[in-house]
Order: sequence, then structure tokens, then C-alpha cells
Amino acid sequence: MSHLYDEIHQQPEVIARLIHEESRTIAHIADSLRQRELRYILIAARGTSDNAATYGKYLFASILRLPVALAAPSLYTIYHTPPHTGKDALVIGISQSGESPDIIAVVNEARQQGACTLAITNEPDSPLARTAEHAIICHAGKEMSVAASKTYTAQLTALALLAAYWSGDEQRKAQIQHLPEAVSKTLTIANDVRSRVERYRYMETCLILGRGYNYATAFEIALKMKELSYILIEAYSSADFMHGPIAVVEQGFPVILIAPSGEVYADMLNLARELHGKGAELIAISDQREALDLAVTPLKLPVTVPEWLSPITCVIPGQLLAHDLTLAKGYDPDHPRGLRKITLTH
Amino acid sequence: MSHLYDEIHQQPEVIARLIHEESRTIAHIADSLRQRELRYILIAARGTSDNAATYGKYLFASILRLPVALAAPSLYTIYHTPPHTGKDALVIGISQSGESPDIIAVVNEARQQGACTLAITNEPDSPLARTAEHAIICHAGKEMSVAASKTYTAQLTALALLAAYWSGDEQRKAQIQHLPEAVSKTLTIANDVRSRVERYRYMETCLILGRGYNYATAFEIALKMKELSYILIEAYSSADFMHGPIAVVEQGFPVILIAPSGEVYADMLNLARELHGKGAELIAISDQREALDLAVTPLKLPVTVPEWLSPITCVIPGQLLAHDLTLAKGYDPDHPRGLRKITLTH
Repeated sequence: MSHLYDEIHQQPEVIARLIHEESRTIAHIADSLRQRELRYILIAARGTSDNAATYGKYLFASILRLPVALAAPSLYTIYHTPPHTGKDALVIGISQSGESPDIIAVVNEARQQGACTLAITNEPDSPLARTAEHAIICHAGKEMSVAASKTYTAQLTALALLAAYWSGDEQRKAQIQHLPEAVSKTLTIANDVRSRVERYRYMETCLILGRGYNYATAFEIALKMKELSYILIEAYSSADFMHGPIAVVEQGFPVILIAPSGEVYADMLNLARELHGKGAELIAISDQREALDLAVTPLKLPVTVPEWLSPITCVIPGQLLAHDLTLAKGYDPDHPRGLRKITLTH
Repeated sequence: MSHLYDEIHQQPEVIARLIHEESRTIAHIADSLRQRELRYILIAARGTSDNAATYGKYLFASILRLPVALAAPSLYTIYHTPPHTGKDALVIGISQSGESPDIIAVVNEARQQGACTLAITNEPDSPLARTAEHAIICHAGKEMSVAASKTYTAQLTALALLAAYWSGDEQRKAQIQHLPEAVSKTLTIANDVRSRVERYRYMETCLILGRGYNYATAFEIALKMKELSYILIEAYSSADFMHGPIAVVEQGFPVILIAPSGEVYADMLNLARELHGKGAELIAISDQREALDLAVTPLKLPVTVPEWLSPITCVIPGQLLAHDLTLAKGYDPDHPRGLRKITLTH
């Protein structure tokens, strides 16, 4: 089996280890954040980590009611006009390796401006971890595959823990404790995914839609499918999709829908009905019967988790789909063409 | 000719009218913004207007050094957990029609929270214009085509004017005065685009890359090509592209590069060389010889404008390309399938 397949299956233990090893540090960081009367958050990240940042945007906005901006690193490294982040800002840099110069530049500038800074990384001795005032370590173990899987769900878990401790919400803290088991149960979908993947051997283009918390999931699954199986797949929020891109959908056009239980489910179900009416080929990732019944390829989530944590389970069928499709197409999931594990962008 | 073609060619007069009719109002708004000691900006928009918002993100961050967040409307309309935007926030809603309920919800909530609010819309009597404290009207005249063209460049011009007046930078104010002439000259590329479009009659997928100020341009051209000519085209910043999606590029894969003169040009040129080395089919929108020489299809911008205004000219070859390709494929550029002029999302 590939490293990627192994790493996808390591996710329950990685998440359990992260919760066990970092909860105390995160509680500490949360105490310190509460004392600073923070007013807004800026997150800097690239690639897979940028999808974790998008999750963070919804998480901190909806749980802590703080506006969240995603940093544009070119303002720092190319235009040399970094925005003024005051002492009431939290600036978070997310990077698996902790080495991306543009992310380090954002965090470094913010720290010099007096903002509160936090690194989320898998590498405790990385330049990013050293640059930020606080660091949360992902404890994912070395990731051998070029395509990130366990470090992504670890980043999401780190963000969820931070939001739970920062808000002081005991119910949320308790919900996170069930994550390793939920992820483990979700992985039982692996055989189902494998048995259905042949149908998509010659799929060249695809759309993937999610909204709210799972907007990030749509982007992350799209990134895996692009970098591993070279499918041109584009992610949208279901609302942005209605403002133009829906025009590309015709009979047989494949669309993946992320539609778990929760506040956005009703919207996603309506969209599933509209796309079904257009004759789209629906692949549904859901725990809900109605959404699954509209799909040619229903991928039934074996467990229902609270919506705010659902991106950590919903991404798994997508990781498996990307992996299996890569094998079906005869490619090597551990060595996508043209990519290295660490990409240094400025 | 189509409405869209007419409206693309109306852009010089629309921009001239907007500058003439709204500069005094914008100067007034800028005075009032300066008195409020604003600390950050939140922009809400969908579809084409969301691409204008992305331009605004770079504009306000680099000229006024203010962090800019793009609003996630689902936090307001689905999760009902709007972030706390304080009195030191400027919240901007951008909508051609001024009717999108989710954008109005963001502006309304912000106004109730005491934030400064601004609408940018083509409709002075729209609900959005009435909801916000301030309004900038685009004066684009009625847009008959479903696909936005003149209202997009008008939104960009409105944002540029606001940034120039707010910063009080006389040089920038003067540079904006040259825009109508620059856009008019840029439109002389129309024949060149038409003569080159046949080659792409059967193109099904494509990538488009821009960075910094022209990150927005890449997304806007991609949206036009998707909604009009049903091409599956995806936009990336050149930096994010290196973190994964570059894997999809193989011999002959079409990539559009937005590479005007300015701070990001060196990066875009390096990327052009790398993609050229991979055998990609490059379509370059540039005023620079080196970038154009690497392209199979060089689209030479007839005029060089300051980089911060270049999204207003760089989008034009893309609008024309989308229009001509739609005709070449036998579709109607004024009536894309499955779309209406006003999309009401929640």
C-alpha cells in the first residue's frame, strides 16, 4: 500500500495524540488570548494549510464572533506594504513544514507590529514555530506522502481545540473527545469508495460543492484530486455556484456534494435536487438518506458528528476517492508529478 | 452584435462618467471615513462583485495598510452567528443590482452593530443602497447582458477612487483620470483576440493565473469563460498554484497568464518560463515582450498603466476572449444557459 493510504488510516491515532499532547498547551494559549481582548484574526497559509485556514475562518467567526481575514502574502513579500495589524489582532500562520517563507513573513511582520502570533505546524523546531509567540504542534508524525492528509485533519483539530478552549465551551471540548472514534468509524467507508471508483476512471472534469464549515472540505478534496489524479476539479460554495458557474453543468456532468447534517443541509439538499433535475451525475458525501438517494454514487458517512466538527470526517471519503482514483488511473499516489513535499513560495 | 459586445465597448464612457459623477461624493465619503479611525475592512459580495471585492482587498491593504476580510454570508444567513464588527470597521457591500439578500444581511447587521457601512451598486434605489450609510453609484447604465462586464470595471474604478481619495494621494487621483483613455486603447485589442480565438474552439479545460492586484482578474476572466462558453477553467494565484495544482499541467495544457508590468511581473515571468518548459500552451496577457514571446497566443496590452489600476485594463482581453469563444462555439453570449441577471442567494 502507499504511504498516502497508510497516512489516511493513521488519522484517528494522530487526532487522539494531538488532543492528548496539546490540550494543556492550547488551554494555556487560550487563557493568554482571552486576556488580550482580541478583535480580529488574520490567518496566513498556502495549499492544504490554506484550506485549514478557511475552516478557521468559519470556526472563529461563528464560535468567537471574531471577523477573520485570510492574509494575502504578496502584500508582504512582493508589494512590501503589510497591513497594520494592531495589538488587538491574532495572526495565525499554518504550515505543515513551518518553512514557507511567505507565511513566516506574515507572522514575523505581525509580531513586530505587536500583534499576538500563533503557529500551527507539524514541526516544533521549524522557523515558523520559532517566529510566533505561541505554537500548536500537530503531532502527526512524519508525513511521507507529498499529498497532505493526516496533517490536514490535525490542523483542523488544532483549530477546533483552540476555538473550544478559547470560548470556554465545555460541550464543545467534550465533543472533540469523540473525534478519534468518529474518524475511525468514517474510515470504514474505504471499501465502499474502492468498489465505486472504476466508474470515474475516465472522468476528466468535475465540480465539488460545499458551504459554511464544509466550504473548506470542498477545496481540500478538490486539491487532492488535482494533485494526485490530475482531474480538473473546481470547488465552489453552493451560493457562489448559483451566481454563474452552474452554467457549465449539463447532462452527465459529475458534481460532488458535501452535505452532512447541520444548518447548511437544507440548502445543499435543494441544490442536489436542482442538479439532479439537470441530469448531473451526483456523488454525495452525506449521512442523510434524502441527499444520498439523489446521487448516482452515494458515499454514506457512517457517523453523524456536530456540524462544526464535520469537516474532519467529511474530508475522508474525498481523500480515499482521490487515492483510489489515482491508482485506477495507473498513477503513483505518493509521487505526484511536478510536486515536492515542501514548496517554498515568496 | 450582442449586448455583451456593446457593453464591453461602453467601458471607457462608463468609467469616465463614474469619475465625473461620483468623485465629489467619494471625496465626501473619504472625509467621513478619515474621521472615524477605521482599523479594518469587511467586504461582502457574490459572483462578479466578489472578484471586485478581491481587488478591494489588495487595494485597501496596500494603499491604506488596512487588513481586509471577505465576509462569509452564511455566518449571517444560515448560522445566524454574525461576527462582531466594531465601530472601527468599514463594511462594504458590492452588488450590481443591490438586491442580493445575503449581501444586504451583512451590511444591515454591521450597521446595527455601529460599523461604518458603504454600498457600491449600479442601482441608487436598491435595498443595498438604502441599507448602507454611504453609497457609491456605478453609473454604468442598464446592463442588458446576463454576464457582467461594464459594471465590473465600474466597481473596480469606484474602489480605486475611494482608495485614492481616502489616502489623499494626489498622484493616484491623477492616474485614475487617464483610465478612460487607457481602457479605450486597450479595446483596440479586439480584432487581435477575434483572429486568434478559433484555435480554442474545442478547448474544454484551462487554467488562468494572476497574482497580487490581478488575482481578481484571473477569477473574473475565469467566471466569464465559465458562464458564457462553458469551459471548465480554474483561477489560481501563481503561488497557490505551485502548492499542488501545477500537477495537472502536461504537454499542450492551456494556461492563461495575467502578466502586466509591475511588482509581480518577475514572478509571473518565472512561472511562464516554467510552464513553457512543461510544454503548456500559454496565452499571455501582458505589455512585456519577454512574457509575450513565451506564449503561443500573445495578447499584447496596447498601453501600460500603473499596476494598482492594471486590473481595469487586463480584464478586457479576457472579456473579449470569453465573448468571441462563445460565438465560435455557437452559443449566445447574452443568454447563458441556467442563469438569470439577478441571483438571489441567502
